[in-house]
Amino acid sequence: MRVADLPTTRQPAAREVDFWFDFASTYSYPAALRIEDLAATHGVTVVWRAFLLGPIFQAQGWSDSPFNLYPAKGRYMWRDLQRVCNEHHLEFHQPSHFPRNSVLAARVACAFDAAPWIAGFVRRVFTANFALDLDIADPGVLTTCLELLDQDAEFVLATATNPESKAKLRLRTATAEDLGIFGAPTFITAGELYWGNERLGNALARAAQISLGA
Amino acid sequence: MRVADLPTTRQPAAREVDFWFDFASTYSYPAALRIEDLAATHGVTVVWRAFLLGPIFQAQGWSDSPFNLYPAKGRYMWRDLQRVCNEHHLEFHQPSHFPRNSVLAARVACAFDAAPWIAGFVRRVFTANFALDLDIADPGVLTTCLELLDQDAEFVLATATNPESKAKLRLRTATAEDLGIFGAPTFITAGELYWGNERLGNALARAAQISLGA
Repeated sequence: MRVADLPTTRQPAAREVDFWFDFASTYSYPAALRIEDLAATHGVTVVWRAFLLGPIFQAQGWSDSPFNLYPAKGRYMWRDLQRVCNEHHLEFHQPSHFPRNSVLAARVACAFDAAPWIAGFVRRVFTANFALDLDIADPGVLTTCLELLDQDAEFVLATATNPESKAKLRLRTATAEDLGIFGAPTFITAGELYWGNERLGNALARAAQISLGA
Repeated sequence: MRVADLPTTRQPAAREVDFWFDFASTYSYPAALRIEDLAATHGVTVVWRAFLLGPIFQAQGWSDSPFNLYPAKGRYMWRDLQRVCNEHHLEFHQPSHFPRNSVLAARVACAFDAAPWIAGFVRRVFTANFALDLDIADPGVLTTCLELLDQDAEFVLATATNPESKAKLRLRTATAEDLGIFGAPTFITAGELYWGNERLGNALARAAQISLGA
């Protein structure tokens, strides 16, 4: 859809792409690991937009991931995701539990979305879930991710779980729904919304192009 | 999923891709219009596998297209399909009715799946639905498609609606479900299933590669 039709929501600036992701979302994993390098080659800046798919799925009447609700689709997705990761030379290990609770990780990524370490944090959490089979709901796992980035994990986790940060993630998720987001990963740039890892290239091309002429 | 795990179903031969499509399916349109030329460049033969998504959706509890049941997803799909068609220089006009009843067209394509005119018929019917906004359930529309291919439309439509042809399409659709097909377009080749127009290139590359070495 053309998000330009929605005047109340933030529009990415020229040469920016808003990257909407959920740490539990399978196809967000290859997108998250690829986006920063690929964006750099296009001269495009990534705006990190962690949100929660759960409330959006619930609004569609789903109490679980559609990949669990529709088994044929789920079986296909795991095989396809393995192929996609092979293609991009990304390590992949099907998580022993799916979907994992991504609320705490999302609160961190939302509260600290402008921190210089945000890109590294996003990649480490996705890698923990989809390559290392670690429970990203465990504060200990997130502590390790943060410490590997030389961050004060205790401070970050305390900040991420204060009322202001919780409210920020709720607002972020409500904004996603207002923007017409129904799945992840979603990329928004220059008035266009793109859904799915395989649309990342289209979104970046659009972001790079629009800033030259339009 | 690996369809090689399903020994009871037909396996495409080397350098063949089975193209599973429903004439009402939106993303099947660009796939159908692109597949023959693209397959030829890979030295791959297309096996035309018309089927009906309706019974498969019903088995998942859907009484309508998910693009109608989930409006945000539907709005996105129409915009995205326009972009995909632009990218491939395909004419596109959002059908005034969606999804159109594709049973009669599927019976023709299933009954005559080995006819020399099948590729042309598939392209003409998809073009009627998604570029010309014509009702493909109308025998008159299918008659025009067939006559443009120099076929005896009366004979073809009579054959397509005899009990044997009706049974063939029912079996075809049941086979699709057995193969783990949950949407269209789907491509099956060399023990792998690919879903979605954007996986066409992957499927053809797999078909071409496997026949060389494996």
